[in-house]
Amino acid sequence: MPKASGVRVMGIDPGTQATGFGVIEAAERLLTPIAWGVVRSPPRAPLAERLKAMSDGLREAIATYRPAIVAVEDTFYARNVKVALTLGQARGVALVAAADAGLEILTYPARTIKQAVSGYGAASKDQVQAMVAHILGLEEPPRPPDAADALAVAICHCHTSTMQARLQAAQ
Amino acid sequence: MPKASGVRVMGIDPGTQATGFGVIEAAERLLTPIAWGVVRSPPRAPLAERLKAMSDGLREAIATYRPAIVAVEDTFYARNVKVALTLGQARGVALVAAADAGLEILTYPARTIKQAVSGYGAASKDQVQAMVAHILGLEEPPRPPDAADALAVAICHCHTSTMQARLQAAQ
Repeated sequence: MPKASGVRVMGIDPGTQATGFGVIEAAERLLTPIAWGVVRSPPRAPLAERLKAMSDGLREAIATYRPAIVAVEDTFYARNVKVALTLGQARGVALVAAADAGLEILTYPARTIKQAVSGYGAASKDQVQAMVAHILGLEEPPRPPDAADALAVAICHCHTSTMQARLQAAQ
Repeated sequence: MPKASGVRVMGIDPGTQATGFGVIEAAERLLTPIAWGVVRSPPRAPLAERLKAMSDGLREAIATYRPAIVAVEDTFYARNVKVALTLGQARGVALVAAADAGLEILTYPARTIKQAVSGYGAASKDQVQAMVAHILGLEEPPRPPDAADALAVAICHCHTSTMQARLQAAQ
């Protein structure tokens, strides 16, 4: 993997069963993939145990890859109340893992992430994952999909902050 | 406050703005209130910061009052998806704070809590809070209400486990 020295950004895609993470380094216009993967929870364990495993795994990934910034999808809706409760629990745990590490945390709406990665706010999951591979110079979409989704959030952050920096420079 | 030596149970009522906690000690049939209060989050801070404040405060309360068991309300429904996401976030953080401390965690449905405290599964919030005061020998309902709700969950756990122990002894 090429070596870059820039800002390290970790995208996180929180879930109760599997939480995706993806770390990229942004230097100038170059985005370099550093690592990606998922933290899996013991599937039939009680909820608190699953959430603790997710918290531990995420803290470990943060300690290993030392990002400066964490980017997470903004969540305003879910299929139903049950899904929202589950998603909220995982998301709360992920946010505290990042906050405890003293990291800067930014959140982006799903539409903004799709737009940033594929140029189209209503892109399909497959389109987003193919574009993640393309942007990061990978031969195929990162696996598992949760990790690719996490990388998409990280890419979104890098594009957005580059754009903001250019706008500020132009003013 | 009378001194009891039994099992210490902390009830938790998680919320993003204020998280209630209530600690009681159960010895034989006697329930002794030890401490109660709320952890408040900085109201206009970003979500991750509010959740971290809640996590820190709860970890501190656990370290101070050293419960052996934590009881939390089971949540299966919420007014809408937005409320469910918010509630889920706070609940996930509370569960991991308890799990990280190595505590036993039990959850009880809202109806079971109301039934255990007031004898009536559809009791009003005021009725539950008045009964919490009565059961714990307090002159008035504990304030703020989030703390009283947390004490109700702790009482529910004590009643339920006493009942189970009696059933086991009878068999």
